[in-house]
Amino acid sequence: MGMHEPFADRLAEAVLRCGNSAMVGLDPRRDLLPSSLRPGGDAPADWAESYRRFCWEVIDVVAGRIAAVKPQAAFFEELGPAGMDALASVIERAREAGLLVILDGKRNDIGSTAVAYARGYLGESSAWRCDAMTVSPYLGSDSLEPFFDVARERNCGVFVLVKTSNPGSGLLQDVEADGRTICERVADLVEAFNMEHAGRLGYGPAGAVVGATYPRELEELRERMPQTWFLVPGFGAQGGTADDVAGAFDAYGLGAIVNSSRGILYAYDRSPYRERFGEAGWRDAVSAALDAMIADLTRRDR
Amino acid sequence: MGMHEPFADRLAEAVLRCGNSAMVGLDPRRDLLPSSLRPGGDAPADWAESYRRFCWEVIDVVAGRIAAVKPQAAFFEELGPAGMDALASVIERAREAGLLVILDGKRNDIGSTAVAYARGYLGESSAWRCDAMTVSPYLGSDSLEPFFDVARERNCGVFVLVKTSNPGSGLLQDVEADGRTICERVADLVEAFNMEHAGRLGYGPAGAVVGATYPRELEELRERMPQTWFLVPGFGAQGGTADDVAGAFDAYGLGAIVNSSRGILYAYDRSPYRERFGEAGWRDAVSAALDAMIADLTRRDR
Repeated sequence: MGMHEPFADRLAEAVLRCGNSAMVGLDPRRDLLPSSLRPGGDAPADWAESYRRFCWEVIDVVAGRIAAVKPQAAFFEELGPAGMDALASVIERAREAGLLVILDGKRNDIGSTAVAYARGYLGESSAWRCDAMTVSPYLGSDSLEPFFDVARERNCGVFVLVKTSNPGSGLLQDVEADGRTICERVADLVEAFNMEHAGRLGYGPAGAVVGATYPRELEELRERMPQTWFLVPGFGAQGGTADDVAGAFDAYGLGAIVNSSRGILYAYDRSPYRERFGEAGWRDAVSAALDAMIADLTRRDR
Repeated sequence: MGMHEPFADRLAEAVLRCGNSAMVGLDPRRDLLPSSLRPGGDAPADWAESYRRFCWEVIDVVAGRIAAVKPQAAFFEELGPAGMDALASVIERAREAGLLVILDGKRNDIGSTAVAYARGYLGESSAWRCDAMTVSPYLGSDSLEPFFDVARERNCGVFVLVKTSNPGSGLLQDVEADGRTICERVADLVEAFNMEHAGRLGYGPAGAVVGATYPRELEELRERMPQTWFLVPGFGAQGGTADDVAGAFDAYGLGAIVNSSRGILYAYDRSPYRERFGEAGWRDAVSAALDAMIADLTRRDR
């Protein structure tokens, strides 16, 4: 549990221990929560308590089976300060359950403001005590380096948005000049940092977010960034398949962690889980959907 | 105070009423707080209370004299949930004092997650009740549109990072392909939305962050985005001068709001305010530094 080893090594150890590269995103959504968890009142504090209970129960179902969870900050922030209390409580519960916590907040800023974000979210001495966080690179290298430096000092990780899973990601990310696209420029920056700060297995503290929905780019970026862990969103509900993400892994099956949020959390709301478990059996649906995702990701015949 | 008019019109009205385009950034920093405000204890809740008191006092000094304040989310988030409580309290105080509140959190995400951020932060029905927020555009157009739509519906604003004030901003923002730089692409996207949704004075709900430290780009972008409010950071402590920001305004002196954070908040710590007021007179230093900034911005002989 302690953060005495570099994040890249801790992540590899957890993936090897669990035998899979699946990650579950903790995205509590009002309109999708099982009805047994919906609050009586409609105040933000009521919803925050529902979100906390929901995420705690999901954590109990997935603990020991996967390496990491990814709380989505937006849904907690939407509820105001009460939501932030719930977020802190969810992070703490996940840590206690032995899960690595990668906060998906896509933070970004410059200089000492970036340092404040990094110091606030990363490591045991921070207020939020996450293992890693996602950051957005539009501001440039001097906005990323403060995150990288704090992450390295604290044995934590930073996943930089490189090529995202949404249909509109190309607008900026695919623009090419002087032989390199924007996302390749970001990729090179991330990889350059890792080359100087790699852990035991050759991976560094700076990771890359690369969407499951762009398999060709995923493969090319894997080749371009051999020392960088990938966080791969877009699996399941967004359309990415196990075949699509195959190119994200290294020769040892490491180097990428694949996220599913809605596809796991709200499995009770779709076939075949709806028929098998119903809404009351939403926990069993989470469990079965996670089993299916893991089986899918670990198929040997790909 | 009510949000019954479009944000762009409310901002113009406030700038005209105050007679200047200055904005003060609320960046509470541990190492710079006047010693009378430093907490006895070192727990996050102790610091959060200090931040709250400091920002409340700053708000009392600047209220009625400027149109808006810009709380920097990072410094509050650094303190964990206690910091978020303080942030909510600071936003509320600023609203009560008649100031527009532009939250500087540089949020960004896609689809329903972006909607969660926008709904959480913008408008009277939201948990945080801000008038506007800053967002980062790396994810592309489908990450900005949800923010724009919620902002428009709620008579609020969204300031998109276009050309930022930091030295490394060029790494991505200045990359040019097919005759347009990345920041020009973002600019065109913002302006296109405003063309369809302009308020009484011709400005729309989508704003642009354009740094004071790049005067030439500021002028070019002003021409490129005639219907877009600019939020101009980098004035003062980051080196931008009144001459540098002159190009940000339209023919009526509207269209831009110029931010200073450290230069105002911690004026007590630099000449000539240190000599005049000392640390105990930090409030008077805030007031005098704001006077100087306003005088600088409103000089007629530029």
